[in-house]
Amino acid sequence: MADRAGQVAVIFVSQRNGVDAAGYAEAAAAMEARAAAQPGYRGIDSARGPDEFGITVSWWADEAAALAWRADAEHAAIREAGRACWYDQYEVAVAEVVRNYEWVRP
Amino acid sequence: MADRAGQVAVIFVSQRNGVDAAGYAEAAAAMEARAAAQPGYRGIDSARGPDEFGITVSWWADEAAALAWRADAEHAAIREAGRACWYDQYEVAVAEVVRNYEWVRP
Repeated sequence: MADRAGQVAVIFVSQRNGVDAAGYAEAAAAMEARAAAQPGYRGIDSARGPDEFGITVSWWADEAAALAWRADAEHAAIREAGRACWYDQYEVAVAEVVRNYEWVRP
Repeated sequence: MADRAGQVAVIFVSQRNGVDAAGYAEAAAAMEARAAAQPGYRGIDSARGPDEFGITVSWWADEAAALAWRADAEHAAIREAGRACWYDQYEVAVAEVVRNYEWVRP
């Protein structure tokens, strides 16, 4: 397991509206791939239920890496598309990891 | 929107195994209700996809409140049931919120 102490978690909580499912899925996959290529990227976890409520956590080495990803031009363009088309509401929280632990079935 | 700066986010990332769906759902609902009654509770967000991969973020006023929830006896008992039955793997990260923002469709 990655020791995430000191990493920055960007917690994205969103309500999709169901509009343009194909375009959304394509953009989401492209953004995951683009995030993974950024300096300081430390992983991404994402889940969305049948009610279209979803949570994505991206993990970054530090605050500078998280801010650089926020400023990325393609990411900014996709955010605009998200507000124009795909989301009814979202919340972003940026948080510094204090500790983490993992359990895996033996 | 709640200003979450200074709050503590407990990020629970889990892979369910599909075993005992009814028992799991009942326990999850009971734990959400019990968390909501704890001092320092500031909300919970949860999403799980059809692949049974899920993320739950519980929000707490401070580290002491998050630790108290971790130590809660019923919560601990449910964690044991989770390891015995419901999860293949999970990761918990505790993180202090630096800032947050929200967008709502106008």
